[in-house]
Amino acid sequence: MTFQRLVRFVPKGGDDDDDSKVLLGEPVDPSVDVGLAVRKGEDVAVKVYSGSSALNPGEATEQTATIGRLLAPLTQQEVGTIRCIGLNYKKHAEEAKMSIPAIPTLFLKPATCLADPYPAPTIIPKHTLITDTADYESELAVVLSRECKNVSEEEAMSYVLGYTAANDISSRAAQFEQTQWCYSKGFDGACPIGPVLVSPAAITDVSKLRMRGLKNGKVVQDSSLNDLIFSIPKVISFCSQGTTLPAGTVIITGTPAGVGMAHNPKELLHDGDEFVVEIQPHIGSLVNVMKDEK
Amino acid sequence: MTFQRLVRFVPKGGDDDDDSKVLLGEPVDPSVDVGLAVRKGEDVAVKVYSGSSALNPGEATEQTATIGRLLAPLTQQEVGTIRCIGLNYKKHAEEAKMSIPAIPTLFLKPATCLADPYPAPTIIPKHTLITDTADYESELAVVLSRECKNVSEEEAMSYVLGYTAANDISSRAAQFEQTQWCYSKGFDGACPIGPVLVSPAAITDVSKLRMRGLKNGKVVQDSSLNDLIFSIPKVISFCSQGTTLPAGTVIITGTPAGVGMAHNPKELLHDGDEFVVEIQPHIGSLVNVMKDEK
Repeated sequence: MTFQRLVRFVPKGGDDDDDSKVLLGEPVDPSVDVGLAVRKGEDVAVKVYSGSSALNPGEATEQTATIGRLLAPLTQQEVGTIRCIGLNYKKHAEEAKMSIPAIPTLFLKPATCLADPYPAPTIIPKHTLITDTADYESELAVVLSRECKNVSEEEAMSYVLGYTAANDISSRAAQFEQTQWCYSKGFDGACPIGPVLVSPAAITDVSKLRMRGLKNGKVVQDSSLNDLIFSIPKVISFCSQGTTLPAGTVIITGTPAGVGMAHNPKELLHDGDEFVVEIQPHIGSLVNVMKDEK
Repeated sequence: MTFQRLVRFVPKGGDDDDDSKVLLGEPVDPSVDVGLAVRKGEDVAVKVYSGSSALNPGEATEQTATIGRLLAPLTQQEVGTIRCIGLNYKKHAEEAKMSIPAIPTLFLKPATCLADPYPAPTIIPKHTLITDTADYESELAVVLSRECKNVSEEEAMSYVLGYTAANDISSRAAQFEQTQWCYSKGFDGACPIGPVLVSPAAITDVSKLRMRGLKNGKVVQDSSLNDLIFSIPKVISFCSQGTTLPAGTVIITGTPAGVGMAHNPKELLHDGDEFVVEIQPHIGSLVNVMKDEK
């Protein structure tokens, strides 16, 4: 792996809708918060890589480009079915009034949930609009570099391509109407990820990361990753038992305390709301702006 | 759609492992139970179609072939994330001591669950072997012909490519260790489907179908499809709300009463056991033989 921080984007100056122009590369400034800079309309310079997929990014070229439209670091096709861990932070289990689980709780999202950061709009489906219960969940996402099955916790880290930010957008009314969570968390666009994929060479100790969720600039979630119940190697090993995890698999690892429905008054998502999942250092901000489905 | 009953297979006489030889076609005898005949070692003649995917089968050619290795009617790549409805038969809800749900219960399986009928072995994962709780669930599967989103019940049937049989293989110990079912039902091979994909032109009224589950020849499930709580159009419409269902999407529609853990003594699955999901008329038998993971 050659990159430290990888971004996928359509460069400025061309046709923003032209997906044949998609580039991969490493931000020139190693400390820039890419998602925040793009949201502010600032130019972000990127050293372009020779490859066309985060799974095979190639090498740095002599070319530099400026980000126009920011994309998720992988495509829906590359990611496939998304693995999601529920109840993986002690304080969130407390606020949800659920006991600390003995084994990880796994649910899935279809690949069609995978979505881009701002400037792509994040759609609140008609179905959820009726119940007015769209909620955020700030999460750390892990991306696998190669296929694995039945891996031990000791081997698990050798399959990690990188870390990024994710938002496990949920429709609470639908979630509490049934025992299973896949429907309420499975709508199109309900899993924006990105924008920066950070190599485990740069993040050597996940427990030292800090994650915040900001709704319209107000901090609504704020947690150290040392509040995780099941570690990253444990989660990868668990998901791989009896189960092939293809290269490109994304595992989102649970949300800390402070989800919208736990606030008083509730902090739910509506048309025009901005939500930022910020993970520091290295990853930075996943910015999304909500839009009602027509 | 030109076919009535479609099968996908590697023809007899060549190299059974050579996936470049995969053919699609319609059994010459419209009443043959393809899965059962292959299990018995009988020759099944097939009128070969020009296409290479059930989503685009083309037309009947002049060629006839004999089935060697029987395959699922679609590939993992074509199917993607599998949609599964829980608790969709009144008598199964009773045996599981759960109330009749007001809306469908949706859970998902990753594409890696999709598996072929006999002669491919159906693997009981090491993880499940420890708990000795592998169980069957006979189900009717619906396959979509084209992408849909936010479809009404009235429009839903125009998206159906066909019906086939499925087995929602479950690890009961893992299922009851957590609130979510995706882990216990998501192991590799936990969703064999096939072998015959039957056009809605041949099955015009699903409620007239009869489904049986047979373990080593003993009938353990036996139900009319008129025991369904949520109809096929209702299930398709529900799954498509806010959610793009790509062409090739498979929805398995729930199991009737008689799952293994509900029998006394329990009828669980072990190495060497044969399980048949039989749906008559038209679909016939999905045969699988269990094998312990090494």
